[in-house]
Amino acid sequence: MVVPVSRALDAVAVSPVIEIGDLDGNLRRLGAALDGFGDETPRLVVLPELATSGYVFADRAEAQELAITRDDPRLVALGSRLGANTIAVVGFAELDGDDLYNSAAVLTHSGILAVYRKSHLWAEEKLVFTPGTDAGMLVDTSIGRLGVAICYDNEFPEIPRALALGGAEILALPVNWPLVPRPEGERAPETIQAMASARSSRLPTVISDRRGAERGVPWTGGTAVIDGSGWVVAEERDGVAAASVTITSDKVVGPHNDLFADRRPDLYRAHESS
Amino acid sequence: MVVPVSRALDAVAVSPVIEIGDLDGNLRRLGAALDGFGDETPRLVVLPELATSGYVFADRAEAQELAITRDDPRLVALGSRLGANTIAVVGFAELDGDDLYNSAAVLTHSGILAVYRKSHLWAEEKLVFTPGTDAGMLVDTSIGRLGVAICYDNEFPEIPRALALGGAEILALPVNWPLVPRPEGERAPETIQAMASARSSRLPTVISDRRGAERGVPWTGGTAVIDGSGWVVAEERDGVAAASVTITSDKVVGPHNDLFADRRPDLYRAHESS
Repeated sequence: MVVPVSRALDAVAVSPVIEIGDLDGNLRRLGAALDGFGDETPRLVVLPELATSGYVFADRAEAQELAITRDDPRLVALGSRLGANTIAVVGFAELDGDDLYNSAAVLTHSGILAVYRKSHLWAEEKLVFTPGTDAGMLVDTSIGRLGVAICYDNEFPEIPRALALGGAEILALPVNWPLVPRPEGERAPETIQAMASARSSRLPTVISDRRGAERGVPWTGGTAVIDGSGWVVAEERDGVAAASVTITSDKVVGPHNDLFADRRPDLYRAHESS
Repeated sequence: MVVPVSRALDAVAVSPVIEIGDLDGNLRRLGAALDGFGDETPRLVVLPELATSGYVFADRAEAQELAITRDDPRLVALGSRLGANTIAVVGFAELDGDDLYNSAAVLTHSGILAVYRKSHLWAEEKLVFTPGTDAGMLVDTSIGRLGVAICYDNEFPEIPRALALGGAEILALPVNWPLVPRPEGERAPETIQAMASARSSRLPTVISDRRGAERGVPWTGGTAVIDGSGWVVAEERDGVAAASVTITSDKVVGPHNDLFADRRPDLYRAHESS
């Protein structure tokens, strides 16, 4: 019998000031956001979707002008600011030949570990970006097996579930959530979906959202850390949400139940053909 | 091009007084709970899980004593109280030979339309009931295509998703939610999961929970109607939560997106084997 190991991880979501079109300034502010963390404990730092470029492009040409390749030395330089125990995830507009992708890079102090391309595009993103060909990404890092998804991806319950079933111990979720109406006293709907997906699979989820507004689009400001029970354990204050979360492969709930072993995967596809 | 039809449905969740062991009294109170609705408009009425028997059985023998067969005339009699435009869903302990099931019957004024057996059993239910062999149930009724799931079933995101993809226009969810701790100001975690699954698939969800406590187990009291945007539009008051909800096969969100067409099902199973 393999005994699951539970351990603590410092989960940090940072929401720096991002100005659309100001690639250099954004890179400088992202760099500053990655400074100042100690290196005593394992840590995940998540930055927003399209953090290098901004989000509300006037047109595809503007996005293309702000896009960078996945091996851009400026991304590598961002990683070089990290301590050896820290992994960072940052969203960027990726240029690959003539194609643009809404991507997220997993950074370490020694380079770019992996890049994920968003596969569920929202609204006008469809006019700018090519969809990725993976449903979220799994990557083994020094802090554990990391899941990465971007914004609208996580509103498809299949994505966090598949990542968790694939062994993700924590989910990094860079987002740009345009503010939508909600009843008084309720959390943002995207937060509710992230709380639910975290709880369904015991998958702590670290969300970095924008603040303020961009070209008339107000942001939700949903930067938060959600623990494996689905509770918001830290919310953004002065640009940062940080909490220690427990990461574990243990899915047991009480003496008779296990969130994964209780699944009936043989039954789940039956209705789709009906 | 097929234009999706949206229409209004009266969604009612009733949480009558249920006493464990009092089969006759429970049936009487369930019957009374089904009276008094007019028949002018299409209506779905949902009653709790194991409403005929109660939930906190001393042992399997007690459950067996309180179980009834799926063609029990007392279930048929419950249906006979309904108007022609009303569908009711009620949980009961089902006896089939030597097996017991945690089941829900779909009742019409002219009989029992279908029976669903819970396939994800919680805690000591595993010592009492045989799991069902379907992941929720789809049934075509006079009010539309109905999805039925029971309690813990809905904490598996696969279930409401598969039902919605199979064409469910509304989900009837009989539950018995034992009260669990939650941070101040938060909704019950099971409610959050139902809000998320409703929003992910635009699937209005009608939850009938217990009230008070049974043999020392306090209930959450989560009886509610959730609309297709994932918002709680009615909560239990004096045993009833009722609201008109819009049911539709339309999954469009804005000019570029559709909750179902945006799915990438070819990608969703990739991580499971990793």
